[in-house]
Amino acid sequence: MRIDAKLLERRLDELYAIGAEPDGGTYRPLYGAAWAAAGERVQRWMNDAGLAVRRDAVGNLWGRLEGSAGGKAVVTGSHIDTVRHGGRLDGALGIVAGLSALEALAKTRGKPKRPLEVVAICEEEGSRFTANFWGSRAIVGAIGPGEPESAMAEAMRERGLDPALIASAARDDIDTFIELHIEQGAVLEASPSPLAIVSAIAGTAHLEIVVTGRPDHAGTTPMDIRRDALVATAAMIQAVASIAAALGRPAVATVGKLRVEPDQINVVPGRVVFTVDLRHADLGARRALEERIRSLCGTIAAERSLGLAMRTLQERPPVSMHPDVRALLERAAADGGVSPPPLNLMSGAGHDAQVLAARCRVGMLFVPSIGGRSHCPEEATDPAHLELGAGVLARALELLAY
Amino acid sequence: MRIDAKLLERRLDELYAIGAEPDGGTYRPLYGAAWAAAGERVQRWMNDAGLAVRRDAVGNLWGRLEGSAGGKAVVTGSHIDTVRHGGRLDGALGIVAGLSALEALAKTRGKPKRPLEVVAICEEEGSRFTANFWGSRAIVGAIGPGEPESAMAEAMRERGLDPALIASAARDDIDTFIELHIEQGAVLEASPSPLAIVSAIAGTAHLEIVVTGRPDHAGTTPMDIRRDALVATAAMIQAVASIAAALGRPAVATVGKLRVEPDQINVVPGRVVFTVDLRHADLGARRALEERIRSLCGTIAAERSLGLAMRTLQERPPVSMHPDVRALLERAAADGGVSPPPLNLMSGAGHDAQVLAARCRVGMLFVPSIGGRSHCPEEATDPAHLELGAGVLARALELLAY
Repeated sequence: MRIDAKLLERRLDELYAIGAEPDGGTYRPLYGAAWAAAGERVQRWMNDAGLAVRRDAVGNLWGRLEGSAGGKAVVTGSHIDTVRHGGRLDGALGIVAGLSALEALAKTRGKPKRPLEVVAICEEEGSRFTANFWGSRAIVGAIGPGEPESAMAEAMRERGLDPALIASAARDDIDTFIELHIEQGAVLEASPSPLAIVSAIAGTAHLEIVVTGRPDHAGTTPMDIRRDALVATAAMIQAVASIAAALGRPAVATVGKLRVEPDQINVVPGRVVFTVDLRHADLGARRALEERIRSLCGTIAAERSLGLAMRTLQERPPVSMHPDVRALLERAAADGGVSPPPLNLMSGAGHDAQVLAARCRVGMLFVPSIGGRSHCPEEATDPAHLELGAGVLARALELLAY
Repeated sequence: MRIDAKLLERRLDELYAIGAEPDGGTYRPLYGAAWAAAGERVQRWMNDAGLAVRRDAVGNLWGRLEGSAGGKAVVTGSHIDTVRHGGRLDGALGIVAGLSALEALAKTRGKPKRPLEVVAICEEEGSRFTANFWGSRAIVGAIGPGEPESAMAEAMRERGLDPALIASAARDDIDTFIELHIEQGAVLEASPSPLAIVSAIAGTAHLEIVVTGRPDHAGTTPMDIRRDALVATAAMIQAVASIAAALGRPAVATVGKLRVEPDQINVVPGRVVFTVDLRHADLGARRALEERIRSLCGTIAAERSLGLAMRTLQERPPVSMHPDVRALLERAAADGGVSPPPLNLMSGAGHDAQVLAARCRVGMLFVPSIGGRSHCPEEATDPAHLELGAGVLARALELLAY
């Protein structure tokens, strides 16, 4: 399927300019001015493409081609919000490429049999409120009873959205959701293939670990009688990294946040609080990884007579992509001449597809991220890869909807 | 030499109450109200003891017994300021015990041959301004040309002290300075002896080490292609501790402060800044310790292709106590029946004696700290040990001045 690559790039440039920050990157927080302006731009493109446009109760923007045979819809798209100093492609690519795909299909194949839609999902990043996957959760009817918080409800009203109507955003008429996204990592770039089909989105567990020793004078306390919480933590950090490395891909474990108390140059650390982010495509494997880390941290603390407290901050199960959709994407890639064939890749990052999987079949395509960079102004993908990804997406939608 | 132990304890209680903080401990920052009140109390005690009292240009408070033969003075004392939430004994003990010693000597031996003084040094802790050892530096004429900073000069004026006269506080008529102090560590408590004679005050080097890796998405970056600044730092922290432990006492090395960037739960740390506090009684040994740590950190960073920058924040040489004064303290302890004989101990903490060593012979006595605790409300010493320490101090002053 032939995609207008120049138009694709131009639209990505236009979106990137909306919310541009003076010190680099762009920022389109949910329900903010840049977010609204970007939505208006996408809405105009949808109108120009002849799509039927509607905005749902949380601000997801839908553009639809009716299907001659009716039935459940085939949907593509991604999110329109960004992190601070966000890049040009995260989220935006899936919307713009989806729009290009629908335009190309409408032009070359006319009206589909099944309804075909592109969606600009209002929020995925936790970009403004602690409510990430807000847009996709609304679509699957999974907004919690305490949501939105009052500041967020106020922000909705400022955009003409009524929080009381959120339940109306839920849909049960989606058959398949396909999302094109950048990898946000460097695995695909290092492989010979220019495209990946996502096998699963990793389950994430976030742990908080508190190590308690004894704060002592750094000058008067000999090494052999210290109870140094940071030296023990250092052993734990190395254990976390080496256990995950020994398990091999796709296991990852990261100590990202760490706080030392009292954090004084001449005091032996008495307490350290740190986090562990654990991911794996397989829930059993992730639990085994977590179990080994908990066990080794316990041993390290016990050997040194230190206190240890561990708690789970968050736990999300891995989500497998639907096998039928994966097979369809394989076929679309083969039809598009993707060579070597697409890599099968676990997504370590979270995506709307993992939420939508609760209500429909889902699948994802990844194009390479140059240098693996993402969530930063350097986020980039070779234009040839963008065109290829959008073309395979269009072919997959064609196979599903025509 | 018989010391009035009850009076000693009562005076320590009185000083501890001046500057008491609602949430525990006491705080007498330099030139503050509590500092001034404590000075007035000590001044009254000095007057009551029949000492000639004077306050020098920075607020050090001197109480003097004139000597029949004149000559240079024998001095004892310690500092009157405290850290926040400071304890009952740090600094205060050396002043109160020195005063008790002079009272006991005046009562039992009358007028000394050589002048005998007790000093309440105005500041040692860096308790308010970044000007620690302020009092002792003034005594040795080592106040820098840019000192005091303007806020500190203003604080001096509020206490009736003229910053233009600081140079007049310098003295070249001190023969020997002896300081009784709590150990602030747990080595003496674990030894059979109730007293220690300090061999040297450790030299301190403070390093700042910056490890630069690459911030990456914690979900999308496989373990084998990460450049994690924190995992490398963990190896460095373990190296710092194990090198010092392998060297054995009195070598100590401490990573006390640490900052992770960006410090986000789901981002691989791109940069870590941490400090190393290194101490040893012997300058050559400390430099060797530092050299090994620098070398191993360099190897760890190089193996992982990480950036590494190291700089020295502060470097103070170790100061040996004068051999004659150490021998005199041994004799005084033997005379006082100290059994087993005093431990020879390096002081890992800094003390005024290390500054005064530039102008006179210095020596220090340590009494045990219960549980090694100091700079906190739990700071305590067995009353029998306080009495013993004060008695040995008095005997040493007697040997020098009579």
